[in-house]
Amino acid sequence: MNKVNLKEKFRLFNAYWTPKILGEVNNSYVKIFKAKGEFVWHRHEHEDEFFLVVYGQLNIKLRDKEIHLKEGEFFIVPRGVDHLPYANEEAHVLLFEPKEVVNTGNAVSEKTVKDLEWL
Amino acid sequence: MNKVNLKEKFRLFNAYWTPKILGEVNNSYVKIFKAKGEFVWHRHEHEDEFFLVVYGQLNIKLRDKEIHLKEGEFFIVPRGVDHLPYANEEAHVLLFEPKEVVNTGNAVSEKTVKDLEWL
Repeated sequence: MNKVNLKEKFRLFNAYWTPKILGEVNNSYVKIFKAKGEFVWHRHEHEDEFFLVVYGQLNIKLRDKEIHLKEGEFFIVPRGVDHLPYANEEAHVLLFEPKEVVNTGNAVSEKTVKDLEWL
Repeated sequence: MNKVNLKEKFRLFNAYWTPKILGEVNNSYVKIFKAKGEFVWHRHEHEDEFFLVVYGQLNIKLRDKEIHLKEGEFFIVPRGVDHLPYANEEAHVLLFEPKEVVNTGNAVSEKTVKDLEWL
């Protein structure tokens, strides 16, 4: 039952595309991650994902268009929709998604993070 | 399937303590509200509530302590916990909570908003 300061939490890690858990709300986790470079094409069959940019710019390729998110902008990737996040420069992102979500969805690879760390 | 800019959405309304829906993620809504003055003591028996301040300062009184949230800080009010949000100056807040949540929880009053508007 304490407040969380996002900037302080982002100072605690450096790895890209490695979500950290900051809180639990009902059946979802509040997570943050740092983005730079390209992630992988993937989808989550049963879960929507909420991405809010808090620093920098995050881009999300979909099969038929591309979303460009600046600080203070969010996008919800609906379940079942293929997406590829990428960032040209470092970006900081707040995520909101059901606890069972795995970062790479259906595309398990060396980028898959299975045991998420709490910060 | 479009991005949402928070500042643009906050420009679309002025009423305090009147949440607007910006998006749907799984079984939750992403909402925003403007705070100024004092809300009412209430609790949500079955739902946790996520409050992220995006402008100004929001305070949340609990029975045994008080939380002071600045821009970039969030707090999760667990289900069943009495709380009283207030703001000395106008504050802008992002909310994340299950669709069935009513703003005043167990304390239905003239401040209760039953049919939330989508922005």
